[in-house]
Amino acid sequence: MNYRFIRNLIGKMLILVSILMIVPLVTSFIYVEDIKNIIAYIIPMVSLAGIGAMMAYIKPAKETHLGAREGFVIVALSWLLISLFGCLPFLISGYVKDFFTAFFEIASGFTTTGASALTTEEMNTMMDMGGRSLMMWRSFSHWIGGMGILVFVLAVIPESKEGSSVHILRAESPGPQVGKIVSKMRASSRILYLIYIGMTIIEIISLNICHIWDDNMTFFDSLIMSFGTAGTGGFASTAESCALYAPCSQYVIATFMILFGVNFTIYYWLFIKNFKDIFHNEEIRWYLIMVILSVLIITLQIYKLYSSLEEGFRHSYFQVASIISTTGFSTTDYWSGAQGRWPALSLCILLFLMFCGSCAGSTAGGMKQSRIIILTKHTGSKIKQMISPRKVEVIRMDGKPIEDNVIQSTVAFFIVYIVVLFASALLISIWNPAMPQEDQEPLTMITASLACISNIGPGLGAVGPAGGYANFSWLSKLILSFEMIAGRLELFPILILFHPRTWKKRI
Amino acid sequence: MNYRFIRNLIGKMLILVSILMIVPLVTSFIYVEDIKNIIAYIIPMVSLAGIGAMMAYIKPAKETHLGAREGFVIVALSWLLISLFGCLPFLISGYVKDFFTAFFEIASGFTTTGASALTTEEMNTMMDMGGRSLMMWRSFSHWIGGMGILVFVLAVIPESKEGSSVHILRAESPGPQVGKIVSKMRASSRILYLIYIGMTIIEIISLNICHIWDDNMTFFDSLIMSFGTAGTGGFASTAESCALYAPCSQYVIATFMILFGVNFTIYYWLFIKNFKDIFHNEEIRWYLIMVILSVLIITLQIYKLYSSLEEGFRHSYFQVASIISTTGFSTTDYWSGAQGRWPALSLCILLFLMFCGSCAGSTAGGMKQSRIIILTKHTGSKIKQMISPRKVEVIRMDGKPIEDNVIQSTVAFFIVYIVVLFASALLISIWNPAMPQEDQEPLTMITASLACISNIGPGLGAVGPAGGYANFSWLSKLILSFEMIAGRLELFPILILFHPRTWKKRI
Repeated sequence: MNYRFIRNLIGKMLILVSILMIVPLVTSFIYVEDIKNIIAYIIPMVSLAGIGAMMAYIKPAKETHLGAREGFVIVALSWLLISLFGCLPFLISGYVKDFFTAFFEIASGFTTTGASALTTEEMNTMMDMGGRSLMMWRSFSHWIGGMGILVFVLAVIPESKEGSSVHILRAESPGPQVGKIVSKMRASSRILYLIYIGMTIIEIISLNICHIWDDNMTFFDSLIMSFGTAGTGGFASTAESCALYAPCSQYVIATFMILFGVNFTIYYWLFIKNFKDIFHNEEIRWYLIMVILSVLIITLQIYKLYSSLEEGFRHSYFQVASIISTTGFSTTDYWSGAQGRWPALSLCILLFLMFCGSCAGSTAGGMKQSRIIILTKHTGSKIKQMISPRKVEVIRMDGKPIEDNVIQSTVAFFIVYIVVLFASALLISIWNPAMPQEDQEPLTMITASLACISNIGPGLGAVGPAGGYANFSWLSKLILSFEMIAGRLELFPILILFHPRTWKKRI
Repeated sequence: MNYRFIRNLIGKMLILVSILMIVPLVTSFIYVEDIKNIIAYIIPMVSLAGIGAMMAYIKPAKETHLGAREGFVIVALSWLLISLFGCLPFLISGYVKDFFTAFFEIASGFTTTGASALTTEEMNTMMDMGGRSLMMWRSFSHWIGGMGILVFVLAVIPESKEGSSVHILRAESPGPQVGKIVSKMRASSRILYLIYIGMTIIEIISLNICHIWDDNMTFFDSLIMSFGTAGTGGFASTAESCALYAPCSQYVIATFMILFGVNFTIYYWLFIKNFKDIFHNEEIRWYLIMVILSVLIITLQIYKLYSSLEEGFRHSYFQVASIISTTGFSTTDYWSGAQGRWPALSLCILLFLMFCGSCAGSTAGGMKQSRIIILTKHTGSKIKQMISPRKVEVIRMDGKPIEDNVIQSTVAFFIVYIVVLFASALLISIWNPAMPQEDQEPLTMITASLACISNIGPGLGAVGPAGGYANFSWLSKLILSFEMIAGRLELFPILILFHPRTWKKRI
């Protein structure tokens, strides 16, 4: 294990997070918040910068070997550390009393889950009683986590080595295969971040245009919503999520959710006018077909519940966009709303979308469309092979044969995903004394676990759009926090971090 | 495709089913039932025998090649055909009016699912108004389906060729690897059936001993219960399942459910005193540990709901045995019973057991313990390989390395299992006009699908122990019937039957 390199890079990352905390600090100044809030940012910023500087002080040797193992460990440790430091503002400001709630909240932020363990009262207090900067920090963490914090470090820090960064990028970026957009890794990271920043700005502008027709869409709201959409996170500024916004804002947010679920390479191709590759990309095709089919079927099922076909379509479009992109905003309570529960098929489709998620190389979570494609084709080829055992089946994606090790690791990912999903559901159902007995049923536990591993936010039952995670015990919150981080990093980094073999001298 | 051989074997199978219908026919005579019932057996018996004889008349050529493909097709066709013919007594006797309900019921019988689409009134009419022979037929179908109808054909028909039978046995018998018990296939099938018959008889005798303390356990009930247990089916003689039996009967049934979930090879080894192999068998160890742990945890959680620790333990033991063996009997309604809903962890454990099932080579359904072991070890080795990529990981079971193609097909099975499970849940939630709106929610749909693919019977929600499948539409019943058959045959035979490539001349 190359400890020097690990220490150095994590140190740089901590300094970066310290700098990023300027955003809520400035917000705090703008809203003339209590001095307690200012301190709540200053303390973690100083300690992050101090510890970071100490760690980054010792430079790694010139000839550094950085293997896959180090990549996984760096990424896993970084995400645990930023969640630990990131929850300090909530605790120091006193808006959140309990460490596990604060840790859950910021882990949910960085991992772009958007599941909140705050009660409605706590949220309202924060919004109305001088805690807006904390709302900003919560939502800004979505934006930081969306594209990946280490990708950012690699993009901005000049001396990072080309060869070493590939394993880190691979461990932090979502999808079965991580392709560089351009030949140089650092240049790729920069292009990704430029696209990300550009699209976020376009959304902020669009939402501010919507403000003309929508009084609820203030400038503050437009930032919160844009950070939440860009990272496919899901923290909103009110407990009602997006229900109070005007239709135009809802359409804009829904459309951007879908856009942020697309592989960012597509945008680069669009930019350099490489339409051929876009046209041959199977993942985007599956993704869009899945969106269109789901919206159509759900609209047909639910429009009668609402006052007009437009309203039914809008709720269907918004919820599908929100779930498939694993954002988790909502405009209607499909589980326990006044209009009545959505029909079983619609809810089952949403559950299925929770499982699938969007494209690899986007900011979204879940299994990812490309994995679904690989698994489908792999299984199809296995069945064909059973029929004619002597024929060799080659499976292709985007016209190219898929390498065997990609298939193997996709399959392993799928199995681990199901195992972690079920194991966490079992663990979080053990002990929740504060949760009403009738809420403790399997659907709540399983969809809570699914919503966390896929980084969505809301599930069904007690964790539906109107519910939340406040009633879970500290133990369950801790388990779910780890599940969110594991899900965001696509499971293996966290599993490898805790695997005894990782820490053996000779492997 | 070797049509001659397929036709010949299916013909023999149909004749056998015709002979097996003597059991309900005799029951009908004993209970002096209406002439209508007699006719209800005579018509299918004559047509089965007639069609069977015609099909079996043309002998296949001496030199027959029978590949895996033919094996799958024979098994899939046989099971569809016996379900088609098997539902005739219900329809002709008039106790069931609707074809899809009757088809569902007998498919549920043969596949040892035990999910009933009959309403409580229909069941009571059958039991009290001269339809006992139909109850017998329903339960006897469990017994026929448990060990496999084609295994039976191969065991009793002398001229079947050694080489050809292995593919059929492989397609019909559960588990990732099908080992012959002794070197000859036919001898193996016979040993299996002898153990099966022997254990069934022991259970019948035990239950009749229980009759001393249990007035409800009549001779008729002991047969119904023993057939249901032996096949790990789950059809009982009343809508209350096993709730009305005395504790001693419940303990006996629970213990036999666990015993019938064990790989039958273990009993053969026990018989020939091969204790070494039993001791090294990992599957039986996992199975028993899973049973013991589940019973303990659930007892701890639920005993306060019942009047005594013994009662809590008994319900826990019975339900765990019933679910892990995929039988589906119940002694208490853990979902909507008077004692209150079981806590979330207990229900999640039951859900997890539904998924796992028992040992390969038993009469039980589900994924099977050995597949769970293989998947767990495979995934563990993949994670180890990520940490140290240059090291080759070999995974072993029972001390022997597992062949790569067994791992591959286990993984494919797992993926197909999840896909069929979800796809069916989606399909059955499309259209059920007769089902109350509040019952149509995802937990009901998903557990209905899970209970059918794993051949269990009851699920949670509206298909919980006190609920049933009567309210599903004919379309949903048809889908679930196919899912049960697909689940019983471990998915591939049915998929291959409907795959276009199977029916191509040149493959």
